[in-house]
Parts: sequence; C-alpha cells; structure tokens
Amino acid sequence: MKTVYFTPGPSELYYTVESHLKAGLRSHVASINHRSKKFMEIHNRLVENLTQLLSLPNDYQIFFTSSATEIWERLVQNCIIKNSTHLVNGAFSERFYKTAISFNKNASKIQKPFGEGFDIESVEIERNTELLSFIHNETSTGVTSSLEGLKSFKKRYPDVLIAVDAVSSLPYPVFDYSGLDSVYFSVQKGFGLPAGLGVWMVNQSCIDKSNEMKAKGLLNGLSTTLLNFSKNFKNHQTPYTPNVLTIYLLEKVTEDMLTKGIEMIRKETEYKAAVLYQAIDQNSHLESFVKNEKYRSKTIIVATTLGDSQDLTNHLSQKGLVIGQGHGENKHSQIRIANFPTHSKEMVEKLADMIVEFR
Amino acid sequence: MKTVYFTPGPSELYYTVESHLKAGLRSHVASINHRSKKFMEIHNRLVENLTQLLSLPNDYQIFFTSSATEIWERLVQNCIIKNSTHLVNGAFSERFYKTAISFNKNASKIQKPFGEGFDIESVEIERNTELLSFIHNETSTGVTSSLEGLKSFKKRYPDVLIAVDAVSSLPYPVFDYSGLDSVYFSVQKGFGLPAGLGVWMVNQSCIDKSNEMKAKGLLNGLSTTLLNFSKNFKNHQTPYTPNVLTIYLLEKVTEDMLTKGIEMIRKETEYKAAVLYQAIDQNSHLESFVKNEKYRSKTIIVATTLGDSQDLTNHLSQKGLVIGQGHGENKHSQIRIANFPTHSKEMVEKLADMIVEFR
Repeated sequence: MKTVYFTPGPSELYYTVESHLKAGLRSHVASINHRSKKFMEIHNRLVENLTQLLSLPNDYQIFFTSSATEIWERLVQNCIIKNSTHLVNGAFSERFYKTAISFNKNASKIQKPFGEGFDIESVEIERNTELLSFIHNETSTGVTSSLEGLKSFKKRYPDVLIAVDAVSSLPYPVFDYSGLDSVYFSVQKGFGLPAGLGVWMVNQSCIDKSNEMKAKGLLNGLSTTLLNFSKNFKNHQTPYTPNVLTIYLLEKVTEDMLTKGIEMIRKETEYKAAVLYQAIDQNSHLESFVKNEKYRSKTIIVATTLGDSQDLTNHLSQKGLVIGQGHGENKHSQIRIANFPTHSKEMVEKLADMIVEFR
Repeated sequence: MKTVYFTPGPSELYYTVESHLKAGLRSHVASINHRSKKFMEIHNRLVENLTQLLSLPNDYQIFFTSSATEIWERLVQNCIIKNSTHLVNGAFSERFYKTAISFNKNASKIQKPFGEGFDIESVEIERNTELLSFIHNETSTGVTSSLEGLKSFKKRYPDVLIAVDAVSSLPYPVFDYSGLDSVYFSVQKGFGLPAGLGVWMVNQSCIDKSNEMKAKGLLNGLSTTLLNFSKNFKNHQTPYTPNVLTIYLLEKVTEDMLTKGIEMIRKETEYKAAVLYQAIDQNSHLESFVKNEKYRSKTIIVATTLGDSQDLTNHLSQKGLVIGQGHGENKHSQIRIANFPTHSKEMVEKLADMIVEFR
C-alpha cells in the first residue's frame, strides 16, 4: 500500500522530487560550494522561475533562509525600528507578534477569534505603525484572509510596510505584489520539498528601511542583515552556507510547475478544495471549522470532529492516507488536510470518499 | 570517470549517504512533522550517537541550527552580555569577532598572522571576558590550534565560557569537553552531509549564562533563544522546523561511524594527512602554508602554489579529483584539500600521486 501524506507541511513531496534528488546526487550538487559558478547558475534560474511563477515585479529580491521563523526575526531586526502591528487569528500570526515583542519592539495586535479572517480593506491601524504583519493563510486554523482592497489600504497608509505570511498558501494565491513589500513562504508546504528552507521576497522599500536603520546605528548582525542578503542576491549568492540541495530541488520543482502552468495548478487547487469541503459537509460527524466560506483556505482544510479526531486520522492512516490532527489545543478535536499542488485530483477524490464514508 | 570532491566543505558526501537518502525517501522521512514521535526517535538516537562518538559529558545538550553562522549569532545573543575575546588567525574566526561587534558587544581580538596557531595554555585575556572564542581549525588557512593545557587555562579563568569552533575538524579531534562550554560544527565538512545544518553543543554553564541574561532583560528572540533550544532538546525536539532530512542522515552517518569506530577514523585521518603533506613536500612547486608542523591541520591541508593555483586544480579536476582553491585573497596562490572520514586511503593516495607528479 502506497502511503500519501496530506499533513499540513511537511507534506507529500512534490511528485518529481525523488527523481530530481537522484539526478542531483549523480551531478554532485550536494558537494558544490555556495560561492561557485554552478551554484550561482542554480540560484539565477531559481530566481527567474519564482519571478515568472508568481509574477513578481522587477524590483523584488528573493532571499533564502532556513525557515519562516528566521524570516520573522529578520523582518523584526531589519524593518521595524519601534512599532509594528500584527493581525492575529491563529498560532503562527501570534508567534510573529510575540517574536517582535521579544526584540523589545512596540508590537500591537489586532485579534480575531481563531477561525475568522481579516479583510485588508477594513483594517485600521495606528498611524505610527512601520510594518503590518498580514497573515494570508493561517496554517493552524485553515483561515485565508483577504487582500482585496489592498490599493485603498495603501492609500490610507502609504508608509506602512506590508509583510504577508503566505507560508502555506503559495504558489496558489494571486497577489498584487506591487502593493506588498514582503511575502514569504516555507518550501515544505505548497512546493512539496523537504523542510529546511524559507523563501523571503522583499521589495526596495524593505531595503530602504534597513538602510535607514543602519544609518541610525540600529542594525544588528553581520552576515544576516537584509542589506547583506541583498548584496549577495545581486551576485546570485547567499550570505551564509545555505541548504544547497533544497535550493537545487526548488529550482527543479518551480521549473516543473512552470511547465504544468500556474493556471492549471490554481484550477486544480480550487477543484480539490471544493471536493474536500463537500466531503466534510456530507459527514455529519464533521464540520468545517471556518464558518464563513469566504475565509476558508483552499490549501489547508480544517474540520472539527464530533469525537476524538484520532479516530478518523487512525482510520485513514490504516488506508495509507496520512492527514494532520488539529493544531495545539485543538489536536484532538480537529483535523487538518493539506491541499497542495503535489496532491493529485485522484488522491484527493479517494481521500474525500473515505471521509464521507467514515462513521 | 568517477568524480571525487576534496573541497574543504561541502565535500564528498559520506559514502553511505546516497543509500540512506534512498531509504529515507522510501520511509517518507521528508514528510514527517518535527513534533512527531518519529522525529523524536530520530533526534534521540542522533543525540545518543553524537554523545558516544565524541565522548560528550552527560550535561552536554545538542542543538540543531541552520549553519555555523547562526551559531555565532546565537552565542552572541545568549552568552555574552558585554565582553568577548576572539582568537583570530583566519577569515572565519575574524567573522565571528565581527559578528559580536555587529551586536554592539565589546569584542576584542587576539590576532596571529594567517598560517599561525594558538596554544590555549599561553593565551592571556582581559579579566572581564565573558566568552572566549577559540578557533580549533581555521578552514581558510588549514591551521589547527592547540587545546593542550586547557585545565591550567580554566584555573586562571574559571568564569570564562570557552566556545570552540570545530566546524571543519570534527569528528577527528579528541577534546576534553569537561573543560569546554560550547563546541560546534557544520555537517558538510567532516560528517560528509549536504550543507544546511549546524550542530551546537553546550554545557550547563552556557544555559546558566543565558538565564542570567534573561533575568536582566537582555535576551532577545522567542523561538531561537538558547533557553528555548534547551527546553525543546529535553523533549527530543527543535525550536522551529529544522532540516529534518539532514538530521535523519546525520543520525545514520553517526551510526555508521560508530560501527567503523572513531579510533579507526582518527588513525586513517592521520595516515592520510601524512600522505598529503608528504606529497606537497615532494613537489617543488608547492609548499605547506602552515610552517610549524604542530599547527598543521589534519583535516584541511593548505599549500601555497608557485604559479596560479588554478593550474593544479584544473589539472586534477580533469582527472576527476576536485580540490579547493585558496580562501579569499589567496584564491589563486593556494590550494586547500579536505581530508575527511569519507575520503578513503586509496582516493587520497591517488590524489597524492598526482600532486607529486604535477609540474
């Protein structure tokens, strides 16, 4: 029996990863230096692929970190002198907020109950906010917030940097990057790669902010400042020895995704999400956690279970389908299902059938 | 023609890595969550393996970071309130020193010319030093410094934390860990793994220091404090999503090294180093960069070339033997050869023969 992981990341590897890994071993990619020409070529192609796949504006730079946790710290250290505002509706947005506080920032939060989403259009923040943390997709609760009306927000707050956590939604969402200053994700979610690499995309405004902090003597760190990330980026390199193997794999997987076409990936994601939400609706022992359909994530599907969620996860696991339990205190009362590009329609339909049948 | 990497890290993968990687893919190790029981079991075995392989004292804790660069920052943030002293005799010890300065620490350095080593026995430091950065093996110059007489140093400076950079020497050296407070390495050197994982070993004194800093309100960071690393370690976990695949591979490789025996690895390392230094001696176009034999690294062998070092590196590369050029400004005037556990006696003898013959 073939096992398939629908866990909310790390999840099932993208279906081409295994063969890329084998080819990579044959070409000694794990032995190359991150200052070598070979690495710079991989880096260059990866940046081109991501720029094309996500339709990034030309002034965006892309940095490779160890994790989204590192990106939170780098954002705090490089883009916030004093004041940040955090939209919080789950465990991960809360953790970014607490990270800012741990660096003595004057961080404030706008909180919604877990399970509810935000609309950027109606968000009101303090005038002195330097950076707004916008959580696009909460991995802990399966809530997607809305960036519709971004332009009007930007008009109201032209000087606020907007940093978007799209850790578990990309490459699916279509963003208006021209209105966003930083967007980041982890590769073990939608891109189907082994964990251990965060991707941090920033525009010139973030770099300007970092330069302002440097001029004021407020920038800590040597290798890991945003300015050093930027300097290395321009040379197709990274500030410190990165996870070269996974960068290589991400280059290959983004190439595969371009070949498949991002439109096809988006369409399939929407179809599969509909199938999964419908299956949850059809089982009276389950209920979608996110009540308002508008905020239901297409990539992380969360349901509340009547009894212990382990009954269902164990049942599915015996059939080779591994889904996630709820996050944190909801571990035993919820299930979480990843709907990433690697999950085929057939796999999802099979999973949906089993969810419908479960009693 | 089979290509073999003798570059000073990333280098040739440990010879068992490929098969472990394939087995890991079969068992879905890249899809497991870092809070899962499966991960905790791998973490637990890896800690046991490293403790046994390196003969670590019982009070040592082992943390997994993204790189040695991250470890420098964590040491600065968690173990230095104000004053540190850095022994500097190459590019990497210099970079740790500069990292401390970038965090506004009062860092001082004791400098030796590149190519010369330190003896802990004769090191004199400022009385107010909180942490001494001791560079055991300078990857940029091929110098190994001496920890003989560590006990007398500790008697003179009982309250100073000693942090040892063994990035490119472990697992070869025998350390008296009871006299050291922190030792760290990167897995892409002696352990023969893909880059993207740093291993940070600390004793209780480092944790006490971090607690002292916390009590004084001087500790920044949420997930990444040493205290949070320690809390997670005790639960066989890591503070944030780590490079699970490489942690899995390190567990396997340390198991293989235990099976082979650390004594055998040490003996072979010494034999191979002798063969390589002898080959350099026998070629009048080459000269060992480290004049004093006592300080010559057994794991990173550096030689000055009469002409452009690329003549030799290109010649060897055509024969499938990839060695490193010099570091930084010595790129074209030096070669660097890694002598790690994965490099067999036969490979090294072949490389040595070609070095002797080269004109």
